[in-house]
Amino acid sequence: VRVLYRDQLAGLWRRLGELAERQHVAIERATASLLDANGQLAELVITEQETTDALQEELEQHALRILAQQAPVAGDLRLVLTSLPVSASLARMGALAEHVAKAARLRVPESAVADRLRDTVTAIGDTAAGTAETLARAITERDTALAAEVAGSDDGMDALHRKLYTQLLSADWPYGVPAAVDAALLGRYYERFADQAVGVARRIGFIITGDLED
Amino acid sequence: VRVLYRDQLAGLWRRLGELAERQHVAIERATASLLDANGQLAELVITEQETTDALQEELEQHALRILAQQAPVAGDLRLVLTSLPVSASLARMGALAEHVAKAARLRVPESAVADRLRDTVTAIGDTAAGTAETLARAITERDTALAAEVAGSDDGMDALHRKLYTQLLSADWPYGVPAAVDAALLGRYYERFADQAVGVARRIGFIITGDLED
Repeated sequence: VRVLYRDQLAGLWRRLGELAERQHVAIERATASLLDANGQLAELVITEQETTDALQEELEQHALRILAQQAPVAGDLRLVLTSLPVSASLARMGALAEHVAKAARLRVPESAVADRLRDTVTAIGDTAAGTAETLARAITERDTALAAEVAGSDDGMDALHRKLYTQLLSADWPYGVPAAVDAALLGRYYERFADQAVGVARRIGFIITGDLED
Repeated sequence: VRVLYRDQLAGLWRRLGELAERQHVAIERATASLLDANGQLAELVITEQETTDALQEELEQHALRILAQQAPVAGDLRLVLTSLPVSASLARMGALAEHVAKAARLRVPESAVADRLRDTVTAIGDTAAGTAETLARAITERDTALAAEVAGSDDGMDALHRKLYTQLLSADWPYGVPAAVDAALLGRYYERFADQAVGVARRIGFIITGDLED
């Protein structure tokens, strides 16, 4: 029973790591589909989200099974219980990547990103992908330093998000209302994506150390 | 011990009902602050969100205490575990009401809502408040019919949300980019608010009946 129990807990960590790594891939592809007006890639992100949702559900079932069969305590209980909101947040990150991909698909064969915003959106996409990649590594390697890195990383995204708004609200914005609205909503999706990553990172730190830092 | 246990579970329901009712009040006030350009009311919504966050944290602690002390099973375990994502979603609804209030505050003494959108935003605000009110009653009265009503209520908000976008993206939009961006983001906040309410309602139905319907 002890061996099975350890396997089940390790399986929970593995599933969390995989779910996080999927969101790294999803946001990277979503950004590429947006910048390159690549409809096929956008479609792939949208389809893959169904798998993400299925994996999240399976992860929840796995956690509840451990809870019912093993009645874990202390750090193990912390892992099992915290895996529930963590997996929900990871799936939500996937839904936000899907929103980006849908915005991209809507404008194909044009890019949904106005020329003037390309550099900023590229930086936003890179930041989001980098955050998700570090988060996935923090989970896979159960590394509190990496988790803390992600948990303290929202300043970069916030600054880029503000820059985007300043650009699209500038008096000489030449692209009209629809392009500005597209960009504002895209900015919001990326900001929420990064925000969810920060929340997950804090919870991962909590699972490992038992301390929930603010 | 049994009496204490029953009290603890009843206390969990009571806390969930209170947290939901707070979001009904929050979104009602946020909408009023938006339409009437009422900075004081906006400020109140923003301040009250701190209490919401504190109440959510206290609720989580309460749930974890029951779990540790009582090792609940079956329907009680379902209540205790599901109260965690439910309380997170309720607090998130409060954060979205706070976003609306902050958008209102930013434009005082003007209203952040363009004249042409007043009717639509009023309808959106009423729909969101009505949904939150029904949700709070569903929880307080443990009423599956009310929960099902909220769980199936997203069509109305979706239609209003689409109408808002059609209006602000129309070719003769006279208010410029910033007003359009404000309105698009406001629409998004209300849509997410209603979406969270639907998710909570489904989970409330699950707590009561054990069935998670799609």
